[in-house]
Amino acid sequence: MRLSKLFTKTSKTVPADEPSKNAQLLIQAGYIYKVMAGVYAYTPLGLRVVENIKTIVREEMNAINGQELIMSNLQPKSTWEKTGRWDDEVVDVWFKTKLKDDTEVGLAWSHEEAIMEMMQQFIHSYKDLPTSVYQFQTKLRNELRAKSGIMRGREFLMKDMYSLHASQEDMDQYYDQVIKAYNRCYDRFGIGDTTFVTFAAGGAFTKYSHEFQTICDAGEDVLYINEDRSVAVNEEVLDDATKELGIDKATLQSVKSAEVGNIFKFGTEKSEKMDIKFTDKEGKQQPIYLASYGIGITRVMGVIAEKFSDDRGLVWPEAIAPAKVYLARLGDSEELVKKADELYDRLQSASIEVLYDDRDVRAGQKFADADLLGIPYRVVMSEKTLLANKYELKTRQSSDSQQVDLDELLNALGVHS
Amino acid sequence: MRLSKLFTKTSKTVPADEPSKNAQLLIQAGYIYKVMAGVYAYTPLGLRVVENIKTIVREEMNAINGQELIMSNLQPKSTWEKTGRWDDEVVDVWFKTKLKDDTEVGLAWSHEEAIMEMMQQFIHSYKDLPTSVYQFQTKLRNELRAKSGIMRGREFLMKDMYSLHASQEDMDQYYDQVIKAYNRCYDRFGIGDTTFVTFAAGGAFTKYSHEFQTICDAGEDVLYINEDRSVAVNEEVLDDATKELGIDKATLQSVKSAEVGNIFKFGTEKSEKMDIKFTDKEGKQQPIYLASYGIGITRVMGVIAEKFSDDRGLVWPEAIAPAKVYLARLGDSEELVKKADELYDRLQSASIEVLYDDRDVRAGQKFADADLLGIPYRVVMSEKTLLANKYELKTRQSSDSQQVDLDELLNALGVHS
Repeated sequence: MRLSKLFTKTSKTVPADEPSKNAQLLIQAGYIYKVMAGVYAYTPLGLRVVENIKTIVREEMNAINGQELIMSNLQPKSTWEKTGRWDDEVVDVWFKTKLKDDTEVGLAWSHEEAIMEMMQQFIHSYKDLPTSVYQFQTKLRNELRAKSGIMRGREFLMKDMYSLHASQEDMDQYYDQVIKAYNRCYDRFGIGDTTFVTFAAGGAFTKYSHEFQTICDAGEDVLYINEDRSVAVNEEVLDDATKELGIDKATLQSVKSAEVGNIFKFGTEKSEKMDIKFTDKEGKQQPIYLASYGIGITRVMGVIAEKFSDDRGLVWPEAIAPAKVYLARLGDSEELVKKADELYDRLQSASIEVLYDDRDVRAGQKFADADLLGIPYRVVMSEKTLLANKYELKTRQSSDSQQVDLDELLNALGVHS
Repeated sequence: MRLSKLFTKTSKTVPADEPSKNAQLLIQAGYIYKVMAGVYAYTPLGLRVVENIKTIVREEMNAINGQELIMSNLQPKSTWEKTGRWDDEVVDVWFKTKLKDDTEVGLAWSHEEAIMEMMQQFIHSYKDLPTSVYQFQTKLRNELRAKSGIMRGREFLMKDMYSLHASQEDMDQYYDQVIKAYNRCYDRFGIGDTTFVTFAAGGAFTKYSHEFQTICDAGEDVLYINEDRSVAVNEEVLDDATKELGIDKATLQSVKSAEVGNIFKFGTEKSEKMDIKFTDKEGKQQPIYLASYGIGITRVMGVIAEKFSDDRGLVWPEAIAPAKVYLARLGDSEELVKKADELYDRLQSASIEVLYDDRDVRAGQKFADADLLGIPYRVVMSEKTLLANKYELKTRQSSDSQQVDLDELLNALGVHS
C-alpha cells in the first residue's frame, strides 16, 4: 500500500477524550476512528490487523472441525424468553428496538439461544452429533461504561463458537480440544507466553468456566498465578479454587490481566429450557449438551496494542501487523523512485505486505510514522544508500540499523528467490 | 467439504411462511435459515456464496482504488441531524435504540453522513482528494414489509462505497469508472446480459441517479428498455427521461426487474450541510463533492437464486457457486472409498471446491440434493464406474451424463496436471 494514496494520517496529538492507551495509540496511528464512546470504525490499516487476527482464528477453528456461518444481529424476543435471558434484569447489556408494528426485537450480544433454535431444524438423531459452528459477528452490548478503548466496546467483533454433543464425555473432550486450539491462537498472536487458562465462575451446569487471561496493566481483571505459572485463578473464584486445588493463596502472585477468551459448558441447560432434544441409539429423546467459546477479536487487537508499544508508538507482532515492511523512500530522483518502486513490487509479488512511504514529507516524519505505526521491519532507501548499492534495514524494536545489499535484505525479510 | 460432516440438511418441504422463491429454495437447500421475517442466518454453504460474491466485488473495487474499511452499526444522532436524515419522517427505515443513560442512537441503514464526518479528520487540502472508501457492512433497515426473502431484508449485507472529490469533473469521471466496475461485477456474477444501467430518480444535486436493474420476475421494479437494449429507464422517471432522450415511450418494452445496485451523486450537498470543507490550490475553503455506490450482496444472491433455478432446484453460476463439483459416491466398498477420497483430495489440492457426498443415503437422494444445491458439475463414482475405470460427469444444466476417464474428467474441470 502506497502511503501517498492512503486517506488516513497519523497525528501527534493524543486524543483528549480517550483515557485508554490502546485507543490513544490506535487513533493517533490511524488504525481506528472513534464514532462515539465504545464505538469505533476500523480504517484500512486497522481492518488489516482485524483480518490477520481473524485468519489465525479461522484456521484454528477449522482445524478442530468448526463450520463457519453467520447468524443475525436482529433477534426475536421468543428465542430468548425460553431461557429467561430476554429479561433486562438477567442480561443487562441488551440493546432493544422495535419493528414498524411495535414488535420488540433485540440486537445480539451473544448467540447461544439463536444457535440452539436453528440447530433444532437440523439435529434429530445421535448421528447428527457432535457438531461445532462458529462465526465472526459484530456484537452489540449496552455497556454502562466504555473507557477501555477497543478492549471493551459497545460494538465489537467476536469469534463465537458453539459445540453440540450427545454426551457429557463428548463435550468434555471437545472442550479440551478447544482449549488447545485457543492456546495456539494466542501463541500465534504473539501473546502466548503471558496468556493463561484460568478458573472462572461457572453457571448452572458447571462449577467453573474458563477464561483466557493475558497479563496486561490496562486489564480490568486480577489474576493469581503460582511461581512456575502452571496454575492461574481469577479473583472471583480464588477462595474456592485454591481450596479445591489444595494451594495456599499466599503463594500466588497477583497481576492485572485482560480477558482475551472465555469458554463455558452450558451442558443440557439450554436444551432443557428450550426443549430441544435428539433421539439416542435406543430411540429415546435426550437433551443436547452445549458448550460455547468466545474470542473478542477487536479486544485482542486492543490488548496487543496495550502490551506491545513504547514511547514511540505501536510494536505489532509480525503475524498480525498490517504490513511486514515499512519502506521509506527519502528523495524523489528518477533513479531512486525507480529502484524503490522495484523493491516495492518485488516484495509485494513475494506476498510480503509493504507500507510504501512515497510521500513528499521530511525523513523525520517518515521515521516517526514507521515507529508509531509499529511495522516490524523498516527499510530506508535514499540517494546515499543508492550510491552505495545498499539498503538500510532496521527492526521496530532495535535502535540500530544495518546497511545490507539486496540479497541480504531479501533474506532477512524471508524472500526466497 | 464432506456432506457427512455438514450440519445442514436439505428439505423436501417448501417452507409455508415464505412467499418468495429465493427464500424457499435457499431454505430447502440449507443455504439460509430464517430467524424472523426479513432476517436470515447464512449457513456454511450460504456463507460461501456470500464470500464468493464479496471476493468479486472486492477485486473490482480495489481495481478502481477503493480502500476497504469497516464503519460502525451504532450511529450517534448528531451525525445525522446535520443533514436532517435523523428524522423518521425523512428516513422511514431507522431502527433506533438507547444507551444506558437514555442517549438515543441509531443502527446504520447507510453511511454517507458517517463517512463524511470521519473524513473531516483526514481531508484538509486538495492534495488529500480524491479518495474512495468502501466496506462490506451489515445494514439494518426497518422495512414495513419483508416478503421477498433475501431480496429485501431487514438485515442484509451491503457493499457501500463513497468517493470524495475536489470538483464535479473529478466526481463525474470517477462515477463513470464505477459504472464500468459495477458492470464487470454483474458480468462476473453471471447476470451481466440481463442487467442494465438505468435512469432513476435523483436528488438535490442531480436530476437522475442510476440503478443497476436485473430482469427478474420476482423483482419489485418495472424497467423500460428499447429493442437493442441500449437504453433502460425506470418507471419513476419514465416521462422525463424519454422526453430528454427524445425517445417514444411506446417503443420501449416493459419488464419486471430487481435493483442490484444504486449509485448516486450527492455533489456538495452533504459537505455544505455538514460544513466539511477542503482548502483548494488558491487557499480557499471549498465544499467536497461526494458520490455513493451500493451493491446489495445478499440481494444479489437472492436475485441469482430467483433467476437461475428450475423445478429441481438452484443452478448457481460457477463463479459464485459454493463448490464447483458435487462428488457423489454410491457405495462404500474399501476400494471405492479409497478412490473417491483420492479424487476429492486431488481436486481440493488443485483449489477446486468439492461437496463430497460421502453420506450413507440412497443414490436418488444424492442426485436430488446435487440438483437442489445447484452445484455446476456432478461427478458420480460407483462400483460400476470403478470397474470400467471411468467417472460419470454431468453439468447441472444438462440432462445427459458422460462416462469419462480421469484425464478427461480433470480436463473438463479445469485441473491442469
